[in-house]
Amino acid sequence: MRFVDIIDKKRENLELSNEEIQFWIDGVVDGSIPDYQTSALLMAIVLNGMTDKETAYLAKAMMHSGDVIDLSSIEGIKSDKHSTGGVGDKTSMALGPMVAACGLKVAKMSGRGLGHTGGTLDKLESIEGFNCFLSEEKFIKQVKEIGVAIIGQTGDLVPADKKLYALRDVTSTVRSIPLIASSIMSKKLASGSDTILLDVKYGEGAFMRTVQEATELANAMISIGNSLGRNTMAMITDMNQPLGNTIGNSLEVIEAIDTLKGKGPKDFTELCMQAGEIMLMQGKICSTKEEARNILQDAVKSGKAFEKFKEMVTYQGGNVKMIEDTTLLPKSKFITEIKCRKEGYVEKIHSEELGILAMLLGAGRAKKEDNINYGVGLKINCKKGDKVTTEDTICYVYHDQELQDEWIERLYEAFLISNTHVENDPLIQKILK
Amino acid sequence: MRFVDIIDKKRENLELSNEEIQFWIDGVVDGSIPDYQTSALLMAIVLNGMTDKETAYLAKAMMHSGDVIDLSSIEGIKSDKHSTGGVGDKTSMALGPMVAACGLKVAKMSGRGLGHTGGTLDKLESIEGFNCFLSEEKFIKQVKEIGVAIIGQTGDLVPADKKLYALRDVTSTVRSIPLIASSIMSKKLASGSDTILLDVKYGEGAFMRTVQEATELANAMISIGNSLGRNTMAMITDMNQPLGNTIGNSLEVIEAIDTLKGKGPKDFTELCMQAGEIMLMQGKICSTKEEARNILQDAVKSGKAFEKFKEMVTYQGGNVKMIEDTTLLPKSKFITEIKCRKEGYVEKIHSEELGILAMLLGAGRAKKEDNINYGVGLKINCKKGDKVTTEDTICYVYHDQELQDEWIERLYEAFLISNTHVENDPLIQKILK
Repeated sequence: MRFVDIIDKKRENLELSNEEIQFWIDGVVDGSIPDYQTSALLMAIVLNGMTDKETAYLAKAMMHSGDVIDLSSIEGIKSDKHSTGGVGDKTSMALGPMVAACGLKVAKMSGRGLGHTGGTLDKLESIEGFNCFLSEEKFIKQVKEIGVAIIGQTGDLVPADKKLYALRDVTSTVRSIPLIASSIMSKKLASGSDTILLDVKYGEGAFMRTVQEATELANAMISIGNSLGRNTMAMITDMNQPLGNTIGNSLEVIEAIDTLKGKGPKDFTELCMQAGEIMLMQGKICSTKEEARNILQDAVKSGKAFEKFKEMVTYQGGNVKMIEDTTLLPKSKFITEIKCRKEGYVEKIHSEELGILAMLLGAGRAKKEDNINYGVGLKINCKKGDKVTTEDTICYVYHDQELQDEWIERLYEAFLISNTHVENDPLIQKILK
Repeated sequence: MRFVDIIDKKRENLELSNEEIQFWIDGVVDGSIPDYQTSALLMAIVLNGMTDKETAYLAKAMMHSGDVIDLSSIEGIKSDKHSTGGVGDKTSMALGPMVAACGLKVAKMSGRGLGHTGGTLDKLESIEGFNCFLSEEKFIKQVKEIGVAIIGQTGDLVPADKKLYALRDVTSTVRSIPLIASSIMSKKLASGSDTILLDVKYGEGAFMRTVQEATELANAMISIGNSLGRNTMAMITDMNQPLGNTIGNSLEVIEAIDTLKGKGPKDFTELCMQAGEIMLMQGKICSTKEEARNILQDAVKSGKAFEKFKEMVTYQGGNVKMIEDTTLLPKSKFITEIKCRKEGYVEKIHSEELGILAMLLGAGRAKKEDNINYGVGLKINCKKGDKVTTEDTICYVYHDQELQDEWIERLYEAFLISNTHVENDPLIQKILK
């Protein structure tokens, strides 16, 4: 097999075989295929696309390019949930313990934040001592004993994806549904769960800009999952405004805890509930949405959901006192209240810009090497459609340094106030399977 | 300027600016743009195409990537002619001296053969002592004094093309009209002539398979030439059978000499005449085709055309005796006559296959490093449409080694004999300007 013939075939828009895709990924990992050939194929894939079959072959080949976590020693159905990333997305922290409290096994690997989006690992590390890097053995043991663990990637998972992603980033070959779908799914498949719930976000704070794009990506990922024997479903959710009210690490831990206790923001609580319903049905804990909703609500009301979170923090070495009394979590030196400058209705809350502004405060990373300041961030005090006057606070800024005028101006501009009333959009657009 | 943004623009099918294309070619030459980025852009160009403007920018940037020959010290209009390459194509050897004998200045750079196509330099080197590698100074001096020189590339012409071609070859990005057109034209532009006649071949022995493809390529090249101030025209010619009767180095020199003396094959003579007409008009030696034809025929009949060839050989150090008595040129040990195996009409003569079979005899190179055997080759004794019987010789094989049965079988199969009469195709399909 000559790799140039494989490029040729894709350039001619013909379907690649399993063997051809395997040959490629093997060559990427062992270095026998040079980057200049891979980048030509990547561009041909971006422009000519891939069939569902090819996309599944690619995800499978990437999945097997490194370690594959074997969760079979854990009894029952193991469930995973993945978000394509957004602003204020603290879902895993609340949802994981919540469904685990209902008897589901959640073995979850999360990532770090970059740019305007935060990462679950960074958020959990706001809790003193919290260890995201368990061995595979300890990870499995924890899921067996308490039903939930959220850790960073263990072992050498999907090395092909790391190599391909680095190349895609500098060759303008990132934007491709089959490449994005196989990249995400290869990691989900390698981390070993039986069921996968995808939260595919759309809007200006998300990678996919429209419901249509998000749906396309979701369908490509569902097709991969199902063709490899994993029950895969997806929610298409709105990222045109931040999820919940907070952006920033400690702030989001507190909001997740509030939600586990039944006192979280309405939109975020509803997302957790609907995601929980799906996960409990995928895991065969329940057979109807109503039944699932009941036991989820019961887990929250009875305190079991929060107890599960405490258990997870304890198992992973975190300081439980900090979550029993969240005032002990890292705090910013200052809190500045931002009043609305005009009367009207909130027409838009630019989530990507708020993500960037929070990053500039120190809540996120501009570059991979940057340090995180856990205490800083934003608490948004309104939602799209709210009526506001100059008396109202639209936002609290948690900061350590003096705020620059330019930064404050950008913050104001992130809130678009109009004269006519606008409706809020539904957070969950659709559920796909 | 970031190169990834330039790739991005082409991926989105937007037009690149002169500056962006210049930035690319500068980066290719100085090595600051890595191959993996260039190959992604190349694939985007192959699949999304390039506008005429972009193609001209590319040709110009490539032309200026290395030395540019300055022919301005030669008086009058300097003319060049380029063939896209075919089987049995000895045109430059006959046409150059022929038009020079009519007063045109021909400063021509040619190439070597590879695969099934021969190269003018290899053919001329059949003549003992012939030197294809003159300094630029000597090259110009020769054109000034005798009006014609055919040499190999001098100086460091279009280094960008060498780098890009090497990459295109291994990334399946060769087949692209704008890339082919700018590659050819950058070299023509850098070699300094005022007028360019392109012989764009189509058919199975050529790179372009159909008249339509060849026309597209020709138009792209004409557009480049004209936009950079060179009078550029093109002939679209048939390569579905070998040009003239011979394939092989000495054999083709002999055929070129025969043609210069007015005793050449009809198809090849007509090609030289029509090409000569165009070149003499481009060079303002004549104003009508009829006038041009007259002085060309006169140059042949009077012996001036052959004298010009002798002059060129003398100037370039070749043994003139060999062309006065062509039996002195390198000869093969054996000549084998191939009789037709059935009666009928010649429906097809597979020129690409005959090119390969001649190469296997030693007339050409499979790899760049291979040596040439000047004496071997094929003399074809029929043309498409000819009536043949088992009495007729379809071909003579000039060889040094014993012929293998498998080789002979392939030779027979290169001639398709059918029961019904077929018409021969016109050699020259159209002339474009």
